[in-house]
Amino acid sequence: MFPLGVGHHEAAWLAEGTDPAGMHGLAHFAGLARIAEAAAFDAVFLADQLSLRDIVEFNPHEKLDPLVVLGALAASTERIGLVGTASTTFAEPYAVARQFASLDHVSGGRAGWNIVTTAEAEASENFGGPDGVTPRRPHEERYARAAEFVEVTRGLWDGWADDALVRDRGTGRYADPARITESRHRGAHFSVRGPLNVPRPPQGHPVLVQAGASEPGLEFAARVAELVFTAQYDHDESLAFTRDLQARAARHGRRPDEVLVLPGLIPVLGATEEEARHRESALHALGGGEHSLGLLSWLLGGVDLRKLPLDAPVPDAILPAEDEVGGQRARFALLVRLARRERLTLRQLLHQIAGGHGHRVIVGTPEQVAADIERWFRSGAADGFNVMPPVLPAGLEEFTEQVVPLLRRAGIFREGYAGTTLREHLGLLRPVRTGELVG
Amino acid sequence: MFPLGVGHHEAAWLAEGTDPAGMHGLAHFAGLARIAEAAAFDAVFLADQLSLRDIVEFNPHEKLDPLVVLGALAASTERIGLVGTASTTFAEPYAVARQFASLDHVSGGRAGWNIVTTAEAEASENFGGPDGVTPRRPHEERYARAAEFVEVTRGLWDGWADDALVRDRGTGRYADPARITESRHRGAHFSVRGPLNVPRPPQGHPVLVQAGASEPGLEFAARVAELVFTAQYDHDESLAFTRDLQARAARHGRRPDEVLVLPGLIPVLGATEEEARHRESALHALGGGEHSLGLLSWLLGGVDLRKLPLDAPVPDAILPAEDEVGGQRARFALLVRLARRERLTLRQLLHQIAGGHGHRVIVGTPEQVAADIERWFRSGAADGFNVMPPVLPAGLEEFTEQVVPLLRRAGIFREGYAGTTLREHLGLLRPVRTGELVG
Repeated sequence: MFPLGVGHHEAAWLAEGTDPAGMHGLAHFAGLARIAEAAAFDAVFLADQLSLRDIVEFNPHEKLDPLVVLGALAASTERIGLVGTASTTFAEPYAVARQFASLDHVSGGRAGWNIVTTAEAEASENFGGPDGVTPRRPHEERYARAAEFVEVTRGLWDGWADDALVRDRGTGRYADPARITESRHRGAHFSVRGPLNVPRPPQGHPVLVQAGASEPGLEFAARVAELVFTAQYDHDESLAFTRDLQARAARHGRRPDEVLVLPGLIPVLGATEEEARHRESALHALGGGEHSLGLLSWLLGGVDLRKLPLDAPVPDAILPAEDEVGGQRARFALLVRLARRERLTLRQLLHQIAGGHGHRVIVGTPEQVAADIERWFRSGAADGFNVMPPVLPAGLEEFTEQVVPLLRRAGIFREGYAGTTLREHLGLLRPVRTGELVG
Repeated sequence: MFPLGVGHHEAAWLAEGTDPAGMHGLAHFAGLARIAEAAAFDAVFLADQLSLRDIVEFNPHEKLDPLVVLGALAASTERIGLVGTASTTFAEPYAVARQFASLDHVSGGRAGWNIVTTAEAEASENFGGPDGVTPRRPHEERYARAAEFVEVTRGLWDGWADDALVRDRGTGRYADPARITESRHRGAHFSVRGPLNVPRPPQGHPVLVQAGASEPGLEFAARVAELVFTAQYDHDESLAFTRDLQARAARHGRRPDEVLVLPGLIPVLGATEEEARHRESALHALGGGEHSLGLLSWLLGGVDLRKLPLDAPVPDAILPAEDEVGGQRARFALLVRLARRERLTLRQLLHQIAGGHGHRVIVGTPEQVAADIERWFRSGAADGFNVMPPVLPAGLEEFTEQVVPLLRRAGIFREGYAGTTLREHLGLLRPVRTGELVG
């Protein structure tokens, strides 16, 4: 899986080899998607936010609508999966079911939906009702709405039998109404009659993706997600996370191979480990640190970090207890654990955030990175990775040219696509209309 | 302007040369758009609905999400405009402003938004709140919401100066926050803080399109629309409509050339007029008449038409008074006038609807069709046409091969694109940030 963007390091736009002026053009997105497709990646991925934050002064923070961009990529690529983010808090299930069904149709079965509940307080101010009313929904309630949202969405996709469009020119019958059923959903959040005005997607359902790290987020993932994005720093912790998620999924009657776990991974490559470290330092030296400073301050509950020495360990007293790092901040819990365990200095912690945004950075040779990936994959600590090169497109080209061949030699990365749909790439079964899975 | 689909005649899917099985694939849409682009049409257009009606048993009625399809077409074409429909009643202004801004970015300035208020009662049942609550909004209130919706949307687009992204690698400043302003909108329907998380669209604003035919719809068009779709049967009536709309626009401080009127036009072509008539009859004979029967019955207030003789004039008593054909049915008002004036039989009226769905059908040779177009254009009865061939792609190919060369010879159809944006194709000025127009 490869997330689209200008590069994962916050100074990416300041680095040679990026073209920040091209970020809003199709050429940029299509170029990246074609590199990933040539290497036979499972999918490209578009993250999302529903507000513009002040950090745009120093970092690219604007974002095009994911469905419009992925629609364009459906035409610019042929086989790679197209995963996009849509919010269950600020959209309607009929609209979202329709958008992803449409993307699945125009791409020939390559759509995936990254389900988010959108914690940003700023977003609710962009979707307010009359006279300044902005609905703030607490964390738990957002997940309750998300659960009903996904239920409605799957019901709409399943409202059409796969063979509902009979298109019989002899009788003049275009569709068989007996094979198109209304949802007639009435729930605590939504009333949706249906049917959807788009036939059942080629994949049955677009692939469902989720990244919640909080307790309700994990339970939600265990119930509905087929791919889970996660931030993991440590092999054993990732293995424990994966096993926990599989156990939770089993309690919901699902099989372990119905939930795939993809930790984030930022590869900083060099011909030698020393060169890789040098390249990482050069990126940090480019600046752009306002974002990481703000992010860390928010993570630590608003502490003013400008008063702390950069090269001394972050005082234990200002690091929150791990169980306090919940809700929207949950994906940083393991970073806080790392900081405490390794006694990271403020500078080191800021660099972790600048380079990884809460995800794991591996600095080393292609051989070192490939060996690390193989170890996590073979042990079951990961089913794959969200590969987020620090600078794009250069970092993606390097990864596909230098690391992917080693993974192929190890027998853990495909030579080319065998199937045509995202489900086929991932080895996920196509849901049949009753909800039962068949091979 | 060319509306995408399987063909405008309701029996199109039954005709040779259409591929109803391909309707959901990108190849169908992209193929049509490329034919229209090769002929240098201004734009392709995707209509929309937010529910699936029973008529799908006999007629294609499913519809992919317009923004996803137009995103794909942005990548499949280079110059042609991309106009899509989005509802102000069942969507949020932040989301819609963002979708069309994104389409404008990925297409390099080719986006247009057909603003609809979505009258369908069925749609509200697909966007209901908790416990079966489905907000029904009366006609007038829908337009009040639409006016505020467009105001918010334009404010979001104008929240960014064209030069807000400074991307200065020397200073590390990516954007100038002084050139990105919040909307802080608070109104009767929406509260939207902003700013949008997408920079100002290449066109400033995507082109605004509208098709309301009711009194509030016309006033709305006069205030905000740059292109107006309309159903017109008669040259003089269309001229009166155009002049009325220009006068209304002038009362809102706009110039006549800021509002372009595009009547619908269904060309049924033949080498001779007789052959054209024969082709039209052959289409009618294909069947698929359930849709037009249902539509006419609804138009006439629920009359059961199956009891009437097909080949006698429709009794004057069951034709509504013209001023009763308002609201959602307003675009059929002129058809009712035509039926009364010409004493159309039930069969003729059904054929008008089957072939034109309320729009004008011209049956004749390419020379006749071209002469008709030239007459309307030169007199000011139309600024252009929404050309809706009865069967696709064949009807579009015929029009571009047989009629367009005649229009070029007459000097009223471009040989090729001079500009790159939809505004440039249409001769519409680019809005500056203050709302003032510059050349």
